[in-house]
Amino acid sequence: MVDTTAVTVLGLGNMGAALADAFLAAGHSTTVWNRTADKADPLVGKGARRAATVEEAVRASPVVVVCLLDYDAVHEVLDPVGGALRGRAVFNLTNGTPRQARDTAGWAGKLGCEYVDGGIMAVPQIIGSESAFVLYSGPGKAAFEAGRELLEVLGSARFVGDDAGLASLLDLALNGAMYGLLGGAMHAIAVVGTEGVKAQDFSAELLVPYLTSMTGIIPHFARQIDTGEYQVDVVAALGMQQVGYRNIRRASLDQGISTDLLDPMQSLMDRRVADGFADDDFSAVAEVLKNSGT
Amino acid sequence: MVDTTAVTVLGLGNMGAALADAFLAAGHSTTVWNRTADKADPLVGKGARRAATVEEAVRASPVVVVCLLDYDAVHEVLDPVGGALRGRAVFNLTNGTPRQARDTAGWAGKLGCEYVDGGIMAVPQIIGSESAFVLYSGPGKAAFEAGRELLEVLGSARFVGDDAGLASLLDLALNGAMYGLLGGAMHAIAVVGTEGVKAQDFSAELLVPYLTSMTGIIPHFARQIDTGEYQVDVVAALGMQQVGYRNIRRASLDQGISTDLLDPMQSLMDRRVADGFADDDFSAVAEVLKNSGT
Repeated sequence: MVDTTAVTVLGLGNMGAALADAFLAAGHSTTVWNRTADKADPLVGKGARRAATVEEAVRASPVVVVCLLDYDAVHEVLDPVGGALRGRAVFNLTNGTPRQARDTAGWAGKLGCEYVDGGIMAVPQIIGSESAFVLYSGPGKAAFEAGRELLEVLGSARFVGDDAGLASLLDLALNGAMYGLLGGAMHAIAVVGTEGVKAQDFSAELLVPYLTSMTGIIPHFARQIDTGEYQVDVVAALGMQQVGYRNIRRASLDQGISTDLLDPMQSLMDRRVADGFADDDFSAVAEVLKNSGT
Repeated sequence: MVDTTAVTVLGLGNMGAALADAFLAAGHSTTVWNRTADKADPLVGKGARRAATVEEAVRASPVVVVCLLDYDAVHEVLDPVGGALRGRAVFNLTNGTPRQARDTAGWAGKLGCEYVDGGIMAVPQIIGSESAFVLYSGPGKAAFEAGRELLEVLGSARFVGDDAGLASLLDLALNGAMYGLLGGAMHAIAVVGTEGVKAQDFSAELLVPYLTSMTGIIPHFARQIDTGEYQVDVVAALGMQQVGYRNIRRASLDQGISTDLLDPMQSLMDRRVADGFADDDFSAVAEVLKNSGT
């Protein structure tokens, strides 16, 4: 039997419970704590140890995985027991912003604990499966390396840099893109639904294959963005796109479906064309976003 | 040598030229016309016949493929030569709305021509390749069947129904979804670019694989939408999503990137939660879009 790392999980919402579950399934000695203690019941049934207090939970393991509602909760829970964190490795997988991750890394550094922030790229249902991955970054790279085997239990573990905010930034950027994808899909389903086209048929036969194939154009746009050359190898000149896009909006209105999700893209394309860049490829939209941030 | 159908292409913009090019490459006798005649030069060099007038072009072939800038151009070009269309098959691949397609089908019916409207699901560069497909619909199903071999030269040919507006509706819905996908991708690239992450690295290692895998969740949402049961097998409850989404917006603001593309989704989720459906899955966004169309 191999020696496995003992681990503590703080926070047993859907995601935290899934993390603890995966550790237990992999045979790790797992201590759990949740503000509402009965959330731990199913895990205790599977062999987890329930800690009565945060401090007891922290002291139970060299590795502490934190998965709370937000960073306010993180500080509410950990600040009172800061001393107990000294010398331990903290992997904070709570959803937050890069700024919050960096602030918390600074706080943890003063306490003498090894801090790594993380972004979970998965829904709870797929934690522990092949398609789940978790991004990690922060000053505690050594702790990440030492704990890698444990962390791989949750999903593919990727360390992306020493900046504690980077994992969070990548996480939020990826999920922002996901909402673009899924929002576009929900809009399309609503539009065709007005003519009695079933969402499941449309998705299986057209929508998913089309979107999947369209992801293939992103590396082309990425190349243009890295070089700043938006008029090289153009596949979709904005001057043409803005005209076609008007039809997408018009059809949505004609079918009685809100254009709320469509409108900002029209403005971005119109703005770039008005600035004299009708021949730019679609990727120039990224340029407009950069120049209109506040 | 097999007998091939003679075809006329009206309109030689990037897309029309790509269509004519594909017909020529497949050995079809191809007549072309464009308002600015010299656009035909490269095609004539490859064996196309240049028609001096629209009427001459129409009379040259039993099948007429139309690919003009918009439906105004279609009527400007075809109305004066309406009589010449009698008995011919017209495949109108001009980008327009379902309403325009239906109106044009009515107009064509009175002229006694077989009319099929179409939506090209490809950029010009991939016309004729395996990944291109074209949606067709309209009263001229017999003409579609007779011309299928010819049409397959452009890309996979799919007849979706007798309603001339349906191909256009599906086309616009799919491309609306594509803009959601690509807009989300451009936004993510802009956000990570602020920390020096190269677009090409980010796309190859994280963005494209993540978005591709996330398309896999669409059929689940489609099932919920078809049944109207948004609280069954929930993977992403809106109550949690709206909190996480605030972090995406906040991080974008912190990095100086416009949240224009993000804002409407926040509103949609907030609205559904405010209406008492915090436990709904993300797919309920489609319901909000339906109920807020004007």
